[in-house]
Amino acid sequence: MVDNNRFENQIRFVKEIDKLKQVFRQTLLMDKSRQETSSEHSWHIALMALILLEYVEGQIDLLRVVKMLLIHDLVEIDAGDTPCYNELACQTKPERELKAANRIFNLLPMNQAHYLKLLWKEFEDCQTLDSKFANAVDRLQPLLSNYYTEGKAWKKNKVRKHQVITRIYSIKDISPKIWKYASDIVEDSVRKGILSE
Amino acid sequence: MVDNNRFENQIRFVKEIDKLKQVFRQTLLMDKSRQETSSEHSWHIALMALILLEYVEGQIDLLRVVKMLLIHDLVEIDAGDTPCYNELACQTKPERELKAANRIFNLLPMNQAHYLKLLWKEFEDCQTLDSKFANAVDRLQPLLSNYYTEGKAWKKNKVRKHQVITRIYSIKDISPKIWKYASDIVEDSVRKGILSE
Repeated sequence: MVDNNRFENQIRFVKEIDKLKQVFRQTLLMDKSRQETSSEHSWHIALMALILLEYVEGQIDLLRVVKMLLIHDLVEIDAGDTPCYNELACQTKPERELKAANRIFNLLPMNQAHYLKLLWKEFEDCQTLDSKFANAVDRLQPLLSNYYTEGKAWKKNKVRKHQVITRIYSIKDISPKIWKYASDIVEDSVRKGILSE
Repeated sequence: MVDNNRFENQIRFVKEIDKLKQVFRQTLLMDKSRQETSSEHSWHIALMALILLEYVEGQIDLLRVVKMLLIHDLVEIDAGDTPCYNELACQTKPERELKAANRIFNLLPMNQAHYLKLLWKEFEDCQTLDSKFANAVDRLQPLLSNYYTEGKAWKKNKVRKHQVITRIYSIKDISPKIWKYASDIVEDSVRKGILSE
């Protein structure tokens, strides 16, 4: 016996999350034609996690990581994309995003809402191996985007080297190889004049 | 000892797939503001697979399904989006997409290229349970999009009911519940005049 209300709530959620395709991030497509949407970013980093898994030290549950990455930005449907180098916006971010998580995930049947809210919180807290890896690819991707677009988003937002390093430093914890690559890119960006010292 | 060439090839792939954000599909965002990109579509259906898994009859490997959905449209970077109701375009699709799969996946180290090409082929052949479920969500999502945008893409492409039914019929095989819902939507669309009989 199928619970029709359950199914309808799931479809309502599927319809609602379409709105993430309207949330634009600071980072550009690599051809610089426009800013990317949070849904495109989520797709990109989920695929990056599959490809870069081998560089993680420790036992990762890849399915959990991919789930985290697919849902991690859904809160932006209500809370908007919070530019990571905007201190004022970052102060109000936790409250705005928690409210959004409650509204959006609660469209789902209770067991799924509960599961996805916990997964989202785990991503935000960044304490477990799975969430550290998820956060690592979430931080690597805009770095690549900036590097390959001559730092357009960095320049626009007057971002400086120490801010980028602070932002990506947690990658070191989960993958020395990815960290080495990411920090080399930062150095090279400064050398090329696309990121301010 | 890390193989730097291997890592660099993986990053080259990560950069290349950014181009899927420039491939526009026939289907619109649910607010009708524009066509969606294939990367946004891929994100949406990967998340739908998590939510709707419980309606599948049979044992599904969700991680494999999600991987399939994340990569299934990468061939469109070279081959473009082939409108599913354009018979002429569909005739040349397998050849164009195979060529694209070889170029794009082969950017990766050999073991990953081989694995993802097999997974892509499995999705296209739609014979296994995993690929049948992946194809089911891939077909359900544009149906929802059309339904919630008053059939704008259907009307533009002069699509008729029997074509939609043919397109979604394989859902019946993998999930009677999702099939029932999808076919009800088709009937309702005809009733509302947003899909031609």
